[in-house]
Amino acid sequence: MTFSLHLLAAQELTANLMQKILALIVMLSLSWGCSNDPIPNTREKVNASHSAHDSLMQAMNQNQKATLKTLGVLVYDGVNDLDYAGPLYVLGQMMGIERKLISIEDGPVMTVMGVELNPDATIDEVDQLDLLVIPGGARGTILAAYDDKLLSWIRKIDDNSLYTASVCTGAWILAASGLLEGRKATTNWYRAEEMLEKYDAQFVPERYVRDGKCWTAAGVTAGMDMALAMLEDLRGFDYAQAVMLDMEYDPAPPILGGSPGKTRPAVTQMMTAMYDQGVLPLIDSLDISRIQ
Amino acid sequence: MTFSLHLLAAQELTANLMQKILALIVMLSLSWGCSNDPIPNTREKVNASHSAHDSLMQAMNQNQKATLKTLGVLVYDGVNDLDYAGPLYVLGQMMGIERKLISIEDGPVMTVMGVELNPDATIDEVDQLDLLVIPGGARGTILAAYDDKLLSWIRKIDDNSLYTASVCTGAWILAASGLLEGRKATTNWYRAEEMLEKYDAQFVPERYVRDGKCWTAAGVTAGMDMALAMLEDLRGFDYAQAVMLDMEYDPAPPILGGSPGKTRPAVTQMMTAMYDQGVLPLIDSLDISRIQ
Repeated sequence: MTFSLHLLAAQELTANLMQKILALIVMLSLSWGCSNDPIPNTREKVNASHSAHDSLMQAMNQNQKATLKTLGVLVYDGVNDLDYAGPLYVLGQMMGIERKLISIEDGPVMTVMGVELNPDATIDEVDQLDLLVIPGGARGTILAAYDDKLLSWIRKIDDNSLYTASVCTGAWILAASGLLEGRKATTNWYRAEEMLEKYDAQFVPERYVRDGKCWTAAGVTAGMDMALAMLEDLRGFDYAQAVMLDMEYDPAPPILGGSPGKTRPAVTQMMTAMYDQGVLPLIDSLDISRIQ
Repeated sequence: MTFSLHLLAAQELTANLMQKILALIVMLSLSWGCSNDPIPNTREKVNASHSAHDSLMQAMNQNQKATLKTLGVLVYDGVNDLDYAGPLYVLGQMMGIERKLISIEDGPVMTVMGVELNPDATIDEVDQLDLLVIPGGARGTILAAYDDKLLSWIRKIDDNSLYTASVCTGAWILAASGLLEGRKATTNWYRAEEMLEKYDAQFVPERYVRDGKCWTAAGVTAGMDMALAMLEDLRGFDYAQAVMLDMEYDPAPPILGGSPGKTRPAVTQMMTAMYDQGVLPLIDSLDISRIQ
């Protein structure tokens, strides 16, 4: 389904109904283990008790680790569609949060799958974010990792963010900004250790890694796992489980695979060779330009 | 990483290099079990044998179930970001396929998470597709399921498609078109049986279901599992495993959840109540208008 908590809160419900739902969430959260009633099969509306709105909302707010107002997700030409959309979908469901797709320059952005997006703002227009997510890609990601203006903006945002995160090769950008120096981190499996060591970060082969205020995810779909862990950290177990149910995230890959250890060696070698041919000449040429 | 096979093929490689990679894929595919060499740590380029291009490409083509030229993904205001992006990412990596985001009307489309997309075409401009994917959402999905012009277009496309698929509540649209009548299907967990029975389809509580040329996926992230199964069907195990590795799809949800059976009953009830309040009045009003 797609009825995000946020959507309901922001766009489709009156303030009054939102209060009722907030109350309902807290009421049900407090009733842990007390209720095993099945989902009603008839279309009876669930009648929440409205008697103690204020105290219930207070309890709900107490479950927040921090008051977060802004979530920014970087996008750029060649950004991976799932790298940006996964964390946006999970973290963007925090009630009351403002979501922004932020581009490096004005104008539409083309994803790696050829989807044209109209971002909400450019880096010149954003001075502060509570959460920043840096998605990966391939050529566009490498260009971004050598863009001094962008790297400086990332450091500025990190100065006042609660968390700064990357997905997949987005860690190459985050690492290039210097913010992963001396930290443990993860990234896409492709030449992971080499790419992080280049920026004095230590690769840890986990689905996601948290070190201080930096969160990093492995390749593409790992961004969803990381974002759910962040959501649990920020809003608690029930909130994270509600969003997981909304996205029916009970994965069942049809075949074995998804990481080098579960993939036929020949397939991993083929993909590595393909990536090598696609990215190494660009990295080498940018490194040489930088030295000169 | 985001170096999609398609992207490399279509945008970033010369035709000559593409041929080398095709050859490499086939060569490595044919060497199943023969190679356990680790990924080279040095930046040596993998030298594919170029000696038998034609026969290798022929072998690769023989691995195709059908020659697919066009993949169309429906988008509309309120479409779920992951419902459309998951299958687009997986199926869009088939070499040589043309991907289209297709909207009902002209102009940009706003996803459920507030992302503005510029679609590639409208339904008026598309007469034929080899693969059609219908993603879900909430209010926008319900409106689409009562849009006779859209439903007629879906039936027309299905007449000549290889597969017609839905993700999440996209099955409500597909079912409303009549194409799931008498078929087994799945959809988002929310009132799944009721919503499919309404259109004489039989709900099967699986991650994805194939019945004839119709494929249906459960909620949101199930679209990735379905698309990978379709890819394996269309291009074989190695191709599907290569794309799984590209998207590092080795999921590790940080907490238990993602389906009603794995979720605290109180959370499931809360989400059901929230969806009820968001969608039932709209469905009821549209059903009444239709009868009148």
